[in-house]
Amino acid sequence: MPTYYNRIAGQSLQRLEALSDGIFAVAMTILVLDLHAPVAAAVHSERDLWHALVLLAPRLVTYLMSFMTLGIFWVGQQTQHNLLAKSDRSYAWINLAFLMAVTLVPFSTSLLAEFITYRLALLIYWLNILVLGLLIAAQLYRARHFGLLKEEMSHEFHVAILRRVVIAQTLYAFGAALCIFSTWWSIGFIVAVQLIYAIAPRFKPFTWM
Amino acid sequence: MPTYYNRIAGQSLQRLEALSDGIFAVAMTILVLDLHAPVAAAVHSERDLWHALVLLAPRLVTYLMSFMTLGIFWVGQQTQHNLLAKSDRSYAWINLAFLMAVTLVPFSTSLLAEFITYRLALLIYWLNILVLGLLIAAQLYRARHFGLLKEEMSHEFHVAILRRVVIAQTLYAFGAALCIFSTWWSIGFIVAVQLIYAIAPRFKPFTWM
Amino acid sequence: MPTYYNRIAGQSLQRLEALSDGIFAVAMTILVLDLHAPVAAAVHSERDLWHALVLLAPRLVTYLMSFMTLGIFWVGQQTQHNLLAKSDRSYAWINLAFLMAVTLVPFSTSLLAEFITYRLALLIYWLNILVLGLLIAAQLYRARHFGLLKEEMSHEFHVAILRRVVIAQTLYAFGAALCIFSTWWSIGFIVAVQLIYAIAPRFKPFTWM
Amino acid sequence: MPTYYNRIAGQSLQRLEALSDGIFAVAMTILVLDLHAPVAAAVHSERDLWHALVLLAPRLVTYLMSFMTLGIFWVGQQTQHNLLAKSDRSYAWINLAFLMAVTLVPFSTSLLAEFITYRLALLIYWLNILVLGLLIAAQLYRARHFGLLKEEMSHEFHVAILRRVVIAQTLYAFGAALCIFSTWWSIGFIVAVQLIYAIAPRFKPFTWM
Repeated sequence: MPTYYNRIAGQSLQRLEALSDGIFAVAMTILVLDLHAPVAAAVHSERDLWHALVLLAPRLVTYLMSFMTLGIFWVGQQTQHNLLAKSDRSYAWINLAFLMAVTLVPFSTSLLAEFITYRLALLIYWLNILVLGLLIAAQLYRARHFGLLKEEMSHEFHVAILRRVVIAQTLYAFGAALCIFSTWWSIGFIVAVQLIYAIAPRFKPFTWM
Repeated sequence: MPTYYNRIAGQSLQRLEALSDGIFAVAMTILVLDLHAPVAAAVHSERDLWHALVLLAPRLVTYLMSFMTLGIFWVGQQTQHNLLAKSDRSYAWINLAFLMAVTLVPFSTSLLAEFITYRLALLIYWLNILVLGLLIAAQLYRARHFGLLKEEMSHEFHVAILRRVVIAQTLYAFGAALCIFSTWWSIGFIVAVQLIYAIAPRFKPFTWM
Repeated sequence: MPTYYNRIAGQSLQRLEALSDGIFAVAMTILVLDLHAPVAAAVHSERDLWHALVLLAPRLVTYLMSFMTLGIFWVGQQTQHNLLAKSDRSYAWINLAFLMAVTLVPFSTSLLAEFITYRLALLIYWLNILVLGLLIAAQLYRARHFGLLKEEMSHEFHVAILRRVVIAQTLYAFGAALCIFSTWWSIGFIVAVQLIYAIAPRFKPFTWM
Repeated sequence: MPTYYNRIAGQSLQRLEALSDGIFAVAMTILVLDLHAPVAAAVHSERDLWHALVLLAPRLVTYLMSFMTLGIFWVGQQTQHNLLAKSDRSYAWINLAFLMAVTLVPFSTSLLAEFITYRLALLIYWLNILVLGLLIAAQLYRARHFGLLKEEMSHEFHVAILRRVVIAQTLYAFGAALCIFSTWWSIGFIVAVQLIYAIAPRFKPFTWM
């Protein structure tokens, strides 16, 4: 009889989406809590304020990078969910693990912003992205092999989606590896890749993105 | 005439779910605010940063535990809600009390993370879980005895759901009792039980979970 | 032509509800940020921790009171919205003003928790509740007189809803006035009234609530 | 084959709205975190508390201004979305950029509240509003020219919507320019314009708003 519980648990796709959208919304918004207004006591002129704000620039870059990271994974999760007819308990838990990695993004962002020249901070940030990528692939696997899709997915389409994840993760890993030279190279490379993902895919040479 | 208000108040199941998903989403995400990046002034090398992060490990464990606690109760509430046809004013208030216990999880987590070797902190954490369990059972009771279900629930199924709650709460209580030896035993036991709940039920010996 | 914009602006009831549920969810959850875990440096034994937690009791009371305040207004707004067929631009803005008063609850709660024996803090808290009450009455007025209801509302029902708001606000005002003696009397009275609202209306003598 | 991904990515209008409502809800609510209760140590009487609260007045004004800013853009985005039949990947990303500007409002508000007499803080605040305006216009452009609308939009209506955005942004720019005299003039002018937007359009001389 309790096995029946497993059959009915976690089936509501709509609520999984509502929770996901809520967690993405909160995570995206609390990223901004890391951008503190400068301390008033240290600012005595417009010029002081300008200098204090310039010092915020690295945090603005990590903010931008993390917002785009979350945006990319939100679009990805949403696109996969559009293919689903329902959820099940395992899918719900893979998704919850994915959302846990989402909630960790503000932490790894804050760590990177505070220690922007430290390789360890950058590698932890990359690890967070890697886990997001692995779990979104696990969601696809579960959906495909346990009958959660609206209709049969063609082999070609499945390969195409997986290739997207693999290419993206390869680029992220390459970006992270650039920290051998400097963490700034890593950050610059990752932001550039993300901007291309967000902006470029509608132009010819990038349609595989 | 005002009694008519009672008849129409709190009936929207959809909005109760939206509020629930919102509160779970915010509670799950602000758990991460407890993971502070180390203070930059105390870190002078990659090695210092590594040591500072190792000191964060207990907070990461309580974070993981609380995210899973909230995940388990979210799946549970969602599963019960799938059985409902509508809500009523009393059900809405039992649910609001449940959501209040949900919003207290970030506090009891923070308390436990700060005082991880203190039995009192662990017992307060356990009390929070106990209240969540009692209120989810109260929701089921209200739904079943006041005609909120989509269809009649069989006695066997009702017993099965209640048994799940009782077994889970017994395991949590046993885990909490382990603090006689050490709070770390309690935490280890509870995390292990939660991982089994999240991962294992699809394997044979755990289907009753 | 721009007047056409006014005709189509703010019509989506569904999105107004989604924003409302989101704001209530965030406001209810960030109330808990006011419950800080005691400072570890000042705690050396289980007993110290117990004493430190006892000192948190007033904040727990204000937390409970504010959660119930928000719960009552959430149930009220939801109940009224169930009667609506659509929204319009004015209704959307009355609702936004109402939501602004909702977001101020964590502030007035925090103020009261910090200055729990100060009449000024209590009166500001009461003012917040009064504004919530006025704006929920304004929503009803707009809905009724500008054709937003699903069906004609009988005069008796309209009077019944308004009477509820007036009685509740009279009780809150009386509670606030008790601060002449002590703010604790006010808080005790308001919490008692709220508990009755949440729990009692299904019992005979309280059906008018 | 991967181009197929572009065709199906970001199509869910419903989830874009859920994410938008979530981000607006969180941003609107965390604005209040900037209103700190006065420090208890400095307050010894009701009179002290009164004086401490009077000092909060500028923050209350910036809070009010930002809540209205977000309210206006929420109504605007919602009104445009009502005209849409679906989303696409580009529209989703324009919307994500818009939401990023929304999450920056609590930061620019906090900056302005802290440095309320500094022109730089005011200009950054205005820049934030300008970006919001540009991106909402970009959404309209994408929707209209890439077949996302439910039905053909008449040229007159399109001009009317654009004119609204241009007039509003002109008023904001004029308000920002008033900081040549004093940032208080700017803030007063912007708040006045926003109140007219929220309240007045149903009266004759303001129907173009």
